[in-house]
Amino acid sequence: MKLGFFTANYLDKPLEEVLDRVVALGYEAVELPAFKGSSHFDVDRALNEPDYVKKIKRMVSERGLFISALSNHPEGQLVLGPHGIDTDGIYKGTPEEKIAYGTERMIKTAQAANALEVGVVCGFIGCENFGRFFPWPYSKGWEEMEAKFVERWGKILDKFEEYGVKFAHEPHPNELVYDVYTAERSLKLMADKKAWGFNFDPANLIYLGIDVVNFIQAVGPKIYHVHAKDGEIVAHNVQRDGLIPTGPWSRITRGFRFRIPGWGSVPWKRVITELALVGYDYVLSYEHEDVTMSREDGETKTAAFLKPLLIRAPYEGRRDILFQ
Amino acid sequence: MKLGFFTANYLDKPLEEVLDRVVALGYEAVELPAFKGSSHFDVDRALNEPDYVKKIKRMVSERGLFISALSNHPEGQLVLGPHGIDTDGIYKGTPEEKIAYGTERMIKTAQAANALEVGVVCGFIGCENFGRFFPWPYSKGWEEMEAKFVERWGKILDKFEEYGVKFAHEPHPNELVYDVYTAERSLKLMADKKAWGFNFDPANLIYLGIDVVNFIQAVGPKIYHVHAKDGEIVAHNVQRDGLIPTGPWSRITRGFRFRIPGWGSVPWKRVITELALVGYDYVLSYEHEDVTMSREDGETKTAAFLKPLLIRAPYEGRRDILFQ
Amino acid sequence: MKLGFFTANYLDKPLEEVLDRVVALGYEAVELPAFKGSSHFDVDRALNEPDYVKKIKRMVSERGLFISALSNHPEGQLVLGPHGIDTDGIYKGTPEEKIAYGTERMIKTAQAANALEVGVVCGFIGCENFGRFFPWPYSKGWEEMEAKFVERWGKILDKFEEYGVKFAHEPHPNELVYDVYTAERSLKLMADKKAWGFNFDPANLIYLGIDVVNFIQAVGPKIYHVHAKDGEIVAHNVQRDGLIPTGPWSRITRGFRFRIPGWGSVPWKRVITELALVGYDYVLSYEHEDVTMSREDGETKTAAFLKPLLIRAPYEGRRDILFQ
Amino acid sequence: MKLGFFTANYLDKPLEEVLDRVVALGYEAVELPAFKGSSHFDVDRALNEPDYVKKIKRMVSERGLFISALSNHPEGQLVLGPHGIDTDGIYKGTPEEKIAYGTERMIKTAQAANALEVGVVCGFIGCENFGRFFPWPYSKGWEEMEAKFVERWGKILDKFEEYGVKFAHEPHPNELVYDVYTAERSLKLMADKKAWGFNFDPANLIYLGIDVVNFIQAVGPKIYHVHAKDGEIVAHNVQRDGLIPTGPWSRITRGFRFRIPGWGSVPWKRVITELALVGYDYVLSYEHEDVTMSREDGETKTAAFLKPLLIRAPYEGRRDILFQ
Amino acid sequence: MKLGFFTANYLDKPLEEVLDRVVALGYEAVELPAFKGSSHFDVDRALNEPDYVKKIKRMVSERGLFISALSNHPEGQLVLGPHGIDTDGIYKGTPEEKIAYGTERMIKTAQAANALEVGVVCGFIGCENFGRFFPWPYSKGWEEMEAKFVERWGKILDKFEEYGVKFAHEPHPNELVYDVYTAERSLKLMADKKAWGFNFDPANLIYLGIDVVNFIQAVGPKIYHVHAKDGEIVAHNVQRDGLIPTGPWSRITRGFRFRIPGWGSVPWKRVITELALVGYDYVLSYEHEDVTMSREDGETKTAAFLKPLLIRAPYEGRRDILFQ
Amino acid sequence: MKLGFFTANYLDKPLEEVLDRVVALGYEAVELPAFKGSSHFDVDRALNEPDYVKKIKRMVSERGLFISALSNHPEGQLVLGPHGIDTDGIYKGTPEEKIAYGTERMIKTAQAANALEVGVVCGFIGCENFGRFFPWPYSKGWEEMEAKFVERWGKILDKFEEYGVKFAHEPHPNELVYDVYTAERSLKLMADKKAWGFNFDPANLIYLGIDVVNFIQAVGPKIYHVHAKDGEIVAHNVQRDGLIPTGPWSRITRGFRFRIPGWGSVPWKRVITELALVGYDYVLSYEHEDVTMSREDGETKTAAFLKPLLIRAPYEGRRDILFQ
Repeated sequence: MKLGFFTANYLDKPLEEVLDRVVALGYEAVELPAFKGSSHFDVDRALNEPDYVKKIKRMVSERGLFISALSNHPEGQLVLGPHGIDTDGIYKGTPEEKIAYGTERMIKTAQAANALEVGVVCGFIGCENFGRFFPWPYSKGWEEMEAKFVERWGKILDKFEEYGVKFAHEPHPNELVYDVYTAERSLKLMADKKAWGFNFDPANLIYLGIDVVNFIQAVGPKIYHVHAKDGEIVAHNVQRDGLIPTGPWSRITRGFRFRIPGWGSVPWKRVITELALVGYDYVLSYEHEDVTMSREDGETKTAAFLKPLLIRAPYEGRRDILFQ
Repeated sequence: MKLGFFTANYLDKPLEEVLDRVVALGYEAVELPAFKGSSHFDVDRALNEPDYVKKIKRMVSERGLFISALSNHPEGQLVLGPHGIDTDGIYKGTPEEKIAYGTERMIKTAQAANALEVGVVCGFIGCENFGRFFPWPYSKGWEEMEAKFVERWGKILDKFEEYGVKFAHEPHPNELVYDVYTAERSLKLMADKKAWGFNFDPANLIYLGIDVVNFIQAVGPKIYHVHAKDGEIVAHNVQRDGLIPTGPWSRITRGFRFRIPGWGSVPWKRVITELALVGYDYVLSYEHEDVTMSREDGETKTAAFLKPLLIRAPYEGRRDILFQ
Repeated sequence: MKLGFFTANYLDKPLEEVLDRVVALGYEAVELPAFKGSSHFDVDRALNEPDYVKKIKRMVSERGLFISALSNHPEGQLVLGPHGIDTDGIYKGTPEEKIAYGTERMIKTAQAANALEVGVVCGFIGCENFGRFFPWPYSKGWEEMEAKFVERWGKILDKFEEYGVKFAHEPHPNELVYDVYTAERSLKLMADKKAWGFNFDPANLIYLGIDVVNFIQAVGPKIYHVHAKDGEIVAHNVQRDGLIPTGPWSRITRGFRFRIPGWGSVPWKRVITELALVGYDYVLSYEHEDVTMSREDGETKTAAFLKPLLIRAPYEGRRDILFQ
Repeated sequence: MKLGFFTANYLDKPLEEVLDRVVALGYEAVELPAFKGSSHFDVDRALNEPDYVKKIKRMVSERGLFISALSNHPEGQLVLGPHGIDTDGIYKGTPEEKIAYGTERMIKTAQAANALEVGVVCGFIGCENFGRFFPWPYSKGWEEMEAKFVERWGKILDKFEEYGVKFAHEPHPNELVYDVYTAERSLKLMADKKAWGFNFDPANLIYLGIDVVNFIQAVGPKIYHVHAKDGEIVAHNVQRDGLIPTGPWSRITRGFRFRIPGWGSVPWKRVITELALVGYDYVLSYEHEDVTMSREDGETKTAAFLKPLLIRAPYEGRRDILFQ
Repeated sequence: MKLGFFTANYLDKPLEEVLDRVVALGYEAVELPAFKGSSHFDVDRALNEPDYVKKIKRMVSERGLFISALSNHPEGQLVLGPHGIDTDGIYKGTPEEKIAYGTERMIKTAQAANALEVGVVCGFIGCENFGRFFPWPYSKGWEEMEAKFVERWGKILDKFEEYGVKFAHEPHPNELVYDVYTAERSLKLMADKKAWGFNFDPANLIYLGIDVVNFIQAVGPKIYHVHAKDGEIVAHNVQRDGLIPTGPWSRITRGFRFRIPGWGSVPWKRVITELALVGYDYVLSYEHEDVTMSREDGETKTAAFLKPLLIRAPYEGRRDILFQ
Repeated sequence: MKLGFFTANYLDKPLEEVLDRVVALGYEAVELPAFKGSSHFDVDRALNEPDYVKKIKRMVSERGLFISALSNHPEGQLVLGPHGIDTDGIYKGTPEEKIAYGTERMIKTAQAANALEVGVVCGFIGCENFGRFFPWPYSKGWEEMEAKFVERWGKILDKFEEYGVKFAHEPHPNELVYDVYTAERSLKLMADKKAWGFNFDPANLIYLGIDVVNFIQAVGPKIYHVHAKDGEIVAHNVQRDGLIPTGPWSRITRGFRFRIPGWGSVPWKRVITELALVGYDYVLSYEHEDVTMSREDGETKTAAFLKPLLIRAPYEGRRDILFQ
């Protein structure tokens, strides 16, 4: 396992500056945001300017780093929705236009990853109405959304396979695949799509009351990428504010908030152990969404906490009489 | 406090038969479903046929029972949505038509309650897209829904007040008011509406990780009615299936399911104690949504479990030297 | 084991009326308050009027009841204090006068118990300054109070032994003996006093975070009497209000309050099991100090809850091949 | 579900007297001990005297009871051991002689059950050395015992099938099948034996730290019989004495002991719910192994506690608009 | 936030030696004991010898340290008591003399802090009889002590304000302000005193069963100083020994004892997070009261544990499309 | 306390290479395997070749290390069994031959330790049938094994005393002494044997549900050596797989497995604190039995985790007025 860094919250700084910073702190890989407007990676240039791709690759490799994945969450969300005002900030249009645009952008992202020789694209698949997890008022709603998922994403995944790139969906609120059960459902629905897999971010599961390690046991080899983000079930608030509260992240009475690794409720040693047991030997990519401290606090504390915990090699066995 | 019975899951039987059954088991009150098509109470007849109202009242009172509330959850849902296919089963139409119809029906239900001399109508207010509790992908979504709530329900509540009837919204998934925080928000938003209050159903809060007793402490005198329904955080499933799972209620691996009182995770003695402390002295109305046992199992076990726990009178104080 | 009733909170009603009420509810014994001014038992008359004693005994026995103990908590408190204003409500005087009066009254209570053929007097021993449990600001304070306990109560206990009556101190806040450790200390300090033992009231220990069953294991045969009172560590309040809060019992945000048996945090089945295992086969005497419900609620609910749990006889063993 | 009574701990009393007692307390079925020397049921007479079988059947049925199962734990233990001194109390002989005798007796018990028209025999399969669950000092030991299980019990189970009787092994310490994992292993090993199933006794699993409800989910339809016995993880002792302690059951410091239902750590409502969900609709048979109280205490308290909890019928569904 | 060091347990060594030691270990500030007889800071000299103040300031600043606070717990205790023998070790006299002396000394300490340009004095306010938290035997006792607090400390706080120095009372056993509720009470009682605030020492609250983070949420901006001390609820002892035990700190069976940070029950990451959220950006001052290890063990382990956890700067926000 | 290293899982490498590796990582002592065939220490050569002993001692001491103990678990196991196939891998023979051989080898190990000036031999005592902890099917079995323990090991321990070497039995599954209770029993049975004591390995107790710190409190000064090994009660598996599961260590669904220190359920700070409180000031010897990571991962992570936690010196006390 290696420690990675998702650069999305440093889009206000040039990529080179971010890479310098990151490598000095001990990070070993980066994940680059590839959605429209990202200052760190421009999909369109990558598809049209061979030199651009070379430049990015060199910029990363000459610092001893590598790119673990491209990320494109917003444009994937358009494929299943919600449409209407909720996604106008990403792309404005009718539902049909949003679907078409999202589909095209995701395929281009895969193409760009291929050009860059990066094997994984992380992102979201979207969800028309997340409230349908509950059967009232429309008990057939979820099932119908599954059918659309198969239809719309099936095509995209075929393209991914064509480009030799895996798609790692990140289970998350407001996504059709958001927990262990829906992840297993998706594996059945997409049984024939090799490109389909997951970007496992434990912070997105822990507020559900799930022991996140079960996710790893359940889908094992389909984990293509991992986010090192923590989620805090805020002990002194949760019994009053609950696990799925509304309101801004900075509200001090929140029952749940995202944190840097080690400051939330994710059991990191158990997560790392189980990842090792299912044979995951890739990157844990850190993303700062912790509203209680600065980015600098976060990146320093995370490297110090997480890097020594990464398991570097599997057990070699033991042959003495005490332990056959 | 008194033990009540919500007759909705006996709509396949005539009201008189249900009342006989219920009174024999020791129940002391009934809550009648008043949505379109209910065989137990027809709002339109109540508004047009004076004898119908008299007949219903006599049917109930001659058995020593009383009506604690009318209930109309489906038609209230139309006011805020979700619109589209999700609520077509209740009333088919454009969003505007659904809003108009829902509004009219709720006002009529209040009018019927007035005719019947019943002080409370229980129901739902609806919610356009419940997934907006999470800021991604549209962080302003929840706030905008609040504005619509004030506008659309403000008018309805004025009518309720006119008819001298309280509206008891039931916090629940897929409702704009679903937890302690949103209940407190609603009290601020509807500060000038006396008719606005709650039908407290602990089963609908417990899956959120909330200690439901906090709801009682938070909104105390605004609890107009109580549902005696339990929710089971299924201990052997929840660490894998989570608290907000999809799929049918009968799925054996579910992390959460509704139960009869005493068979779930609701701490009934604490609930009853706190209700007593805030001065609630009305009905706990039992509704069967437990897929693990028959209605007969449920109504018998519930009466045996819950009736002896109801607190009948407050503490009189004590005057001896040991306890000043 | 038998179910008893401590009549202190019915001093506003004649004893006969209380006895009638109690026997109808299924209680099998009574504990009578014997402090100055008790309308249920007057120590002075008992010592001077043979007919008074006879009358009381007959009044109890003709209803099939018996007296499990006399109780005198206030006058015992005077012996070790606190003196000053804290105990002026019991008896006004200098510390020396309070000690003398308290000593005399406790001896008279024993004498009255002897006259009544009741083997146990329940009460308090007092404590000059309970805050001395903590070493700051005076680390030798507790030890010095122990010396006074031995001196003052040693004499009283000798008198108890003379009258053939046991003294059952009730471990409680503001008493020198208030937990498992101080109870064990007292057994060492009073090793030669047969009359010294305990009135075990689990509600008085549970707020300390003690698993109350340990008290039974620790002092076993020295438990002379048991109070059936519960204490609620109020789950939704305690993390903020703590276990030793100030303020009136009716404060709704309290972290701890007394309750009727079964409505607090005392594990009654475990308590009853452990009492059976140490050979306790006497009375569990119910006292109402629950501010959340009426005395009638309390005495009804307690009899229904506790009586079926009382263990009536020890295991006879089993002789078949499956269980040698 | 029905409430049953295992008569083994009343072998000192005639069966008729036990049946009278049991029916008066509300029990609905009995399980009869059928091992050599049982005064309640003699296998040899049953095979040779037609009138004996008739007499037993009448004795039971004329009281409105029925026989849920025959039980023969000791003789089954001989088949896999341990041999040597450990089982000399059951039958003395070489390992080979014990195996032969145990095999023969179990087959005869099935034959007797057939004669009695009782469909289930409960019992133990044995285990040569239970310590082999741990790989030290012999890591291949458990696997080798599995091979003997298949060989020796395969033959017996074929005979059971011939007689139309099921064998319900009771997972228990010192049995080769003792937890969820070994139960699942046995179902694989005995995949072709219809007669193979389980007598589920939750008390025997709970000391393992297993959530016993998982057993029901894992083997569902293979539960042929259920024992209503509880096991107490003794909260005040376990952190010091552990879950697998040695020493007599009456040792007061034990970390684990058997109890009557409702006085231990088994979650009965969850057990009953899960049994209902897998379609179990047979008997919960109570057996007294609780050293803290008399048999009379036990049988009274168990009937009062358990009978009202039994689920009598499955959910009929609900058809109204609120619950599709 | 900065890491500080309270020098009280090094009074046997010259201040300069202590400063050298402390700075080498990475501490960034010191808190100096200012009670009569302190070898590290002499209030009387500070008020009379300008050079003394200069010398102390230089001694500290030339090592890159600063003084976070002066501390005077013993002399403040005299103001409210307990009087009598309990505080004779601090100052012998009648209650009136103790009050006068304590009052004068605290004012002088503020004056000395002003001279030293240190903005905070930490200390205790005292409490006549801490046992009065419980209503028996004198239910009006606590309220009466509050009146004395307002009267006596009101005057002192006025002087503090005059000198521009804040008083940080440390909630603690045997103090009138000892938990969240009494802290909130004191803010109401001293609503007009700007100088009134708290020295938050989580170890002093945790034995109450309080989630100490609630203290921070409750009084936020009134936290003027923080002690980095931990308290261990000794897991293997507490169920028997309780949370408020008597006896020496070194008693191995104690249910509660003070510890160095990270070795007790205080959730430090949550404490630091909540301090950051309420805007606290000052010192966490370490004090060694841990009887299980040497001072050297303590100061080394504390610096290594706590310093990397201090949050240095608040969140700057994030502006990309993923996180609006 | 010092950090040690048990070299058994590096028997595939020459001792010198292991010592180099270990000292570089910061370990301060080694424990050498002394069973037949160990490539790190040959008992027979040690008894016959004076130079061999000198060479080993020099090899260790010239690296600044010391030998904390010799270890011989397999040959001790032969003394009490199990005999038969279970221990044929250690030494093949009749029970009598195994006993004789095991006895002789253990005595020789003590002799070698004496030659090496090492004061402790760690090992196992064996157990004929561990399943006898449970009374069925032979309730007298455990007691009978105790008698054999006294007889066979009494002789060996006399020899140990003669050689001035202590025997540190490691409580463990399949040993007659395996928990707190049996350890206390052994101290009574071996009351006159000074050489008898324990090698405390918390991983071997934690699966029993014991709070391992109780072991330290119970036998304090009889702890002669400590193993730094952790045991993980695998949170996501245990409720289904239980605490005493069968099957290979690498089975991913196991409820319990051995881990490196800090990655399991052992509360190391509490263990180290309690060891300090009972005066233990020797070695914590790390042994790798963690199947989830490489030996290199283990030795690096263990040194980084454990060494900073070791308590180096006891509390010196404190003399100031704040802390008398």
